[in-house]
Amino acid sequence: MKAPEALGRIREERPLVHHITNYVTVNLVANVTLATGALPVMAHAAEEVEEMEASASALVMNIGTPDPALVEALLLAGRAANERGIPVLLDPVGVGATTLRTRTAERLLSEVAVSAVCGNAGEIATLAGLSAEVRGVESLAGDARAATVEAARALGVPVAATGETDYVSDGGTVLAVGNGNPLMGRIVGSGCASTAVIGCLAAAEGGGTASPETIAEALALFGRAGEVAAARASGRGTFEPHLLDALSELCSEPDLLEGTVRVREEGVG
Amino acid sequence: MKAPEALGRIREERPLVHHITNYVTVNLVANVTLATGALPVMAHAAEEVEEMEASASALVMNIGTPDPALVEALLLAGRAANERGIPVLLDPVGVGATTLRTRTAERLLSEVAVSAVCGNAGEIATLAGLSAEVRGVESLAGDARAATVEAARALGVPVAATGETDYVSDGGTVLAVGNGNPLMGRIVGSGCASTAVIGCLAAAEGGGTASPETIAEALALFGRAGEVAAARASGRGTFEPHLLDALSELCSEPDLLEGTVRVREEGVG
Amino acid sequence: MKAPEALGRIREERPLVHHITNYVTVNLVANVTLATGALPVMAHAAEEVEEMEASASALVMNIGTPDPALVEALLLAGRAANERGIPVLLDPVGVGATTLRTRTAERLLSEVAVSAVCGNAGEIATLAGLSAEVRGVESLAGDARAATVEAARALGVPVAATGETDYVSDGGTVLAVGNGNPLMGRIVGSGCASTAVIGCLAAAEGGGTASPETIAEALALFGRAGEVAAARASGRGTFEPHLLDALSELCSEPDLLEGTVRVREEGVG
Repeated sequence: MKAPEALGRIREERPLVHHITNYVTVNLVANVTLATGALPVMAHAAEEVEEMEASASALVMNIGTPDPALVEALLLAGRAANERGIPVLLDPVGVGATTLRTRTAERLLSEVAVSAVCGNAGEIATLAGLSAEVRGVESLAGDARAATVEAARALGVPVAATGETDYVSDGGTVLAVGNGNPLMGRIVGSGCASTAVIGCLAAAEGGGTASPETIAEALALFGRAGEVAAARASGRGTFEPHLLDALSELCSEPDLLEGTVRVREEGVG
Repeated sequence: MKAPEALGRIREERPLVHHITNYVTVNLVANVTLATGALPVMAHAAEEVEEMEASASALVMNIGTPDPALVEALLLAGRAANERGIPVLLDPVGVGATTLRTRTAERLLSEVAVSAVCGNAGEIATLAGLSAEVRGVESLAGDARAATVEAARALGVPVAATGETDYVSDGGTVLAVGNGNPLMGRIVGSGCASTAVIGCLAAAEGGGTASPETIAEALALFGRAGEVAAARASGRGTFEPHLLDALSELCSEPDLLEGTVRVREEGVG
Repeated sequence: MKAPEALGRIREERPLVHHITNYVTVNLVANVTLATGALPVMAHAAEEVEEMEASASALVMNIGTPDPALVEALLLAGRAANERGIPVLLDPVGVGATTLRTRTAERLLSEVAVSAVCGNAGEIATLAGLSAEVRGVESLAGDARAATVEAARALGVPVAATGETDYVSDGGTVLAVGNGNPLMGRIVGSGCASTAVIGCLAAAEGGGTASPETIAEALALFGRAGEVAAARASGRGTFEPHLLDALSELCSEPDLLEGTVRVREEGVG
């Protein structure tokens, strides 16, 4: 689904997007969700996550600061989201950096029907079983495009790797998203935030899936917001408030996106 | 107590305001508290919350991201605050959205002598036993004024419902606060922050209570800061830093409030 | 090590700095770390902190929102960092305010070989066994210089007390850092952030220690960023984004520091 159509639905339906996420970037993720027009709710307790899914239109699972209680909550929420047929996004933050993160991503992918996975190039390469240079939660190198295709094939769901160019693939074709600005990689949380935007557009799309087109449109929208914000900011610190300004402007007036979205379909060959 | 008098006391006495709150908006809540001139402390461990009350002048309880350990800490802190006779504010974030939130609010209201309750219209309607459209932690509709009066009568303490117009009632009269700007509802945490401002002014007022006048003055002060900030901001992202600028200016020079506070007393009829 | 040299190494080596920290200022701490050129990772689970140390070049321990699980993780991480020979910084937030915080600081200092301690004047006075006026996590008064020397002698490691003037001492000489701006004390987290900058420069210095010179250079760098940001900001709210802008500029072009660093060596007498 194209971003303007999805954003129109979001404004009309105000879908609730449930995030189980880390405490580092949670505020940005909530504000980004609200900026799309969707309603964010952050809730992590095993005692309430299943019930929260009853009113949610999408679940975004982010393992940025994992611990056993959070993993338990993610599994409960993921299964409840599956039962309700809403899309479930996974941002496998830091997978490959520690056993806890790797096992958590593996468990979530095996015990929950995840609709799509979105991470940085190193995380996606790790999930694809390729070698990757990951340091903590940062990816340092690697062929993001190939990793995206490989991971999508291995996992059987659409996968996105964010970076200078974002790649989205279902294992067949590849969508390359050219929107964005280097400042996005210089603030903490732009990766988490981009997965949140995907969650919002997937909530609008409905059907319990997140199509490669919708994922690419979400990344192009967020990347375009980054371009607009970069032109207004004087550095990485002032960039973040302008990013929310710009995202909100684009989401409430999607006509502004016209002619600015750079999504290119490529063969896998 | 009028805001200028309370702010004068805060500057003089530097009261400690203890927040047990959620990890989504905690940074904003701490900065807002500091901007009033009060000293914020965020502490959640059962092992230290009672001891923290010994030096605190107010306790603000916010259930935005509840779990059983947090509920236990809230109960311990609330009882300790009651023993010390300091005001206890409750922000029942998301009450009605899940059983955990509803039961937590109920337990806090039955086991702690809460001085006042401040929430959005949907949360206050839920506490009043009225029907409300709550989605996650967002309120979508309802008669906020009637809900405020009903909740104050049901709970026997002053209640505030924040929204386009804020309402404050002790079940008898109603104070309507006209200050504010729509941008306040477009950032995550303005509700939590407004309860924090109430906590700071209640700390200054002393006596272990939060009078409707003091609550309304706090909401008018925060709303006025929102008006000033909105005139300087270019969107919701840049609004938040300007909100802290403006709040800090008004709190250090309360004369600036003169002629700008819009609090109207209304009959309940 | 001088800041420009340390920053050059950071840009080249991209060291991973592991923070176990509070949820109030965690976002600022992560962004400040990234602004130096280092890679931040925030991870708190006992199940992964030891493993995280394997790729970390420094560990920063901050007890701003302690609880027993966090204390356990801090001890595990600290010992693992010691085994790897990387520097371990301790920010004893709120020590003296509650028994939990005091005991946590004591345990960390006795069970982990801490490389340096950085706190506000009240916290450092508490660690030195001097009387201090601490309210929550804020320090209100005291002779910061004397407390720094005393604490360094008592603990046997370099100690820094941040404030209007920052003092750094190994118990022998004292370095007084004159850079900074009062706005730094008016945002939540500048203390945590300054310890983070020390952690980044100590990671670059290597050798598992944090020398008084490196600590003072880190505080001067961060203080200088505060001066630059204050000239651009219109208040405490807009100060924070500008602080990140300025820090990032200075870290990527350390030549800008020339002639601005105010570190003075003083006798203890």
